[in-house]
Amino acid sequence: MIKYNLMIPGPTPIPTRVLAAMNHEMIGHRGPLFSAVMKEVMTDLKWAYETDNDIFIYPSSGTGGMEVAAVNVLSPGDKVIVLNIGNFGGRWAKICTAYGADVNNVKFDRGKAADPKVLEAELKKGLVKAVFMQQNETSTGVINDVETLAKLVRKIQPDALIMVDAVSGMMAAPLKTDVWDLDVVVSGSQKAFMVPPGVSAVSISARAWKAHERSKCPKHYWDWSLMKEHAPKGHTYTTPPESLIFGMREGLRMLREEGRENVFARHKFNRDLLRTAARSLGLKLLADDTCASPAVTAIFPPEGVDGEEVRKLMREDFSVEVAPGQSELKSKIFRIGHLGYVDSLDLIGAWAAVEVLFKRLGAKINFGAGVKAMMEML
Amino acid sequence: MIKYNLMIPGPTPIPTRVLAAMNHEMIGHRGPLFSAVMKEVMTDLKWAYETDNDIFIYPSSGTGGMEVAAVNVLSPGDKVIVLNIGNFGGRWAKICTAYGADVNNVKFDRGKAADPKVLEAELKKGLVKAVFMQQNETSTGVINDVETLAKLVRKIQPDALIMVDAVSGMMAAPLKTDVWDLDVVVSGSQKAFMVPPGVSAVSISARAWKAHERSKCPKHYWDWSLMKEHAPKGHTYTTPPESLIFGMREGLRMLREEGRENVFARHKFNRDLLRTAARSLGLKLLADDTCASPAVTAIFPPEGVDGEEVRKLMREDFSVEVAPGQSELKSKIFRIGHLGYVDSLDLIGAWAAVEVLFKRLGAKINFGAGVKAMMEML
Repeated sequence: MIKYNLMIPGPTPIPTRVLAAMNHEMIGHRGPLFSAVMKEVMTDLKWAYETDNDIFIYPSSGTGGMEVAAVNVLSPGDKVIVLNIGNFGGRWAKICTAYGADVNNVKFDRGKAADPKVLEAELKKGLVKAVFMQQNETSTGVINDVETLAKLVRKIQPDALIMVDAVSGMMAAPLKTDVWDLDVVVSGSQKAFMVPPGVSAVSISARAWKAHERSKCPKHYWDWSLMKEHAPKGHTYTTPPESLIFGMREGLRMLREEGRENVFARHKFNRDLLRTAARSLGLKLLADDTCASPAVTAIFPPEGVDGEEVRKLMREDFSVEVAPGQSELKSKIFRIGHLGYVDSLDLIGAWAAVEVLFKRLGAKINFGAGVKAMMEML
Repeated sequence: MIKYNLMIPGPTPIPTRVLAAMNHEMIGHRGPLFSAVMKEVMTDLKWAYETDNDIFIYPSSGTGGMEVAAVNVLSPGDKVIVLNIGNFGGRWAKICTAYGADVNNVKFDRGKAADPKVLEAELKKGLVKAVFMQQNETSTGVINDVETLAKLVRKIQPDALIMVDAVSGMMAAPLKTDVWDLDVVVSGSQKAFMVPPGVSAVSISARAWKAHERSKCPKHYWDWSLMKEHAPKGHTYTTPPESLIFGMREGLRMLREEGRENVFARHKFNRDLLRTAARSLGLKLLADDTCASPAVTAIFPPEGVDGEEVRKLMREDFSVEVAPGQSELKSKIFRIGHLGYVDSLDLIGAWAAVEVLFKRLGAKINFGAGVKAMMEML
């Protein structure tokens, strides 16, 4: 195939409009031209977050944004709960541990969402500084019920901070930062915003600002206080990644034009399309329907086929890049990303390749059934 | 003026070739296509650094790169010397202090380079873990004699780490990482590499790796050990800022085509051009000839003219973006960047605007003399 098809859960394909917007000369990052760009990005980010809270952006990957969140509110010795439903839950635990927090790393079976009953029991064991969770867990294709989890925290421990990694979930599924009273929400440019990687954003509630004042974790680059000095002018503490900010402006404009509900419906439909296709072929899915991610789907290959092999051959034979399983799921699954600038017809094309590949490998599948089921859904 | 002229010491103007290279679809960051890109970038970065040491790149601004350097080798309580010749020296001190180091913040007069005799005296007072310095201080337009300073450290305290912020100096002036035995050298994409901001790079000597093993500063995102796991495959621990990496590849290719000595000669010539122009007009320069930066020049405006006013009117009347004075130099100076993709004719044009502006403001200058002197130098 001559065309490269990116079907991983980030970075996602970039619309030409965003690429064109990034094709911009550099401007003074402490001047009025850049302030105007930042002002628009900030307004639209608040729209995406559904928040009036402060939002700061950093030159970093999503993991950097997670570190921003942790180091700005925690002090060494703070007790925290991490709702660990996959690799990125594990990452919250690693970051908090690295900075000396006392981490209750609550692990759930891979493919399951965080169980509110388990959270309830943990919250009743004693006061914690914060509860860390994913909106969407990229490694398993599972979406958490953040609204319910957040309500529980507020009910049992009203002062605990609710820290949400929404890097792969933001704009793929609803996240109401203010209505759900979320304290720090992290997002990244390279997911549903349809922009290349390199920018993370964090929103900061009044409760999080208060925690920040008492936070003793060492920090400089990530320090909210340094960012706060520059924010009123639309500037950042250090030099901002200008081309990516131009890209963010365009990606956010496109999302606003499409409309929030349409964006969510598109992600949901593509999720259902892919799940239907996989099941029509007789394949098993890692996540239940109750917690299936609208951003990425983890699929078990047919018996006798290795997940890593699927990734390799999809790349070599069809120029389609899918994602492998991570950690304990390595070789067991393969994952298809369907967030950001991905359309239903892209998914049908990619799935056609999956079916042909499995047939070539001699797997017992209901050949053609997946693509047909997808067509019937259109 | 319809054309925007960026004359600040970073971000610098971006060549169309680099912009075009960045205009690239996203690819899997854990696959062979991206590995090949990274391999080329790493080879060329090692060429730029003149090193065989490991180099890691991070999605971050230059300040992030400085933090990478500090947190990976230091432990709380470590004694360090900071050679502070300007704002970015001050930043080294702030970062080291934030992470609990015992900082000997050795300040030099603004406009002067770090005096080797002062360093010698400080080194003789007792063992330190590391000496932090700038190759080039952006806030004052001063270049340090890193070679001499490094030799002194090696002579008096052979085991002390030599930590160099080369963000604005790298490829604007010689820096021989291996010959001078520098332990950690930090660079940034948005300077002489001619790429937008958002990528920092650090080189790591064997001595720095050893220090890393014992380092107790908390870290996760910046952790060299996590990067090391992924480096052999040409991958990074977290998602790399792909478009900027494509840009780095092209910027580095252009530098190699131009040739190291030609790149340095160009920066030196443009420095001399600008200094001659300013002097011909009767203006004073902040830095002596002995330590004048090839990347940025700090100039005192004529008597009665405020440095901030110069910046504002250059922007409004001529669409030329120059940099202001920082901290104690605010309003006293203005700075013109001449690193990266800046040519002598750009400088002559910008300087013509400076002369016209001063004339309009009624300053007593030798009108026309600066531009004429520049023309004679061509």
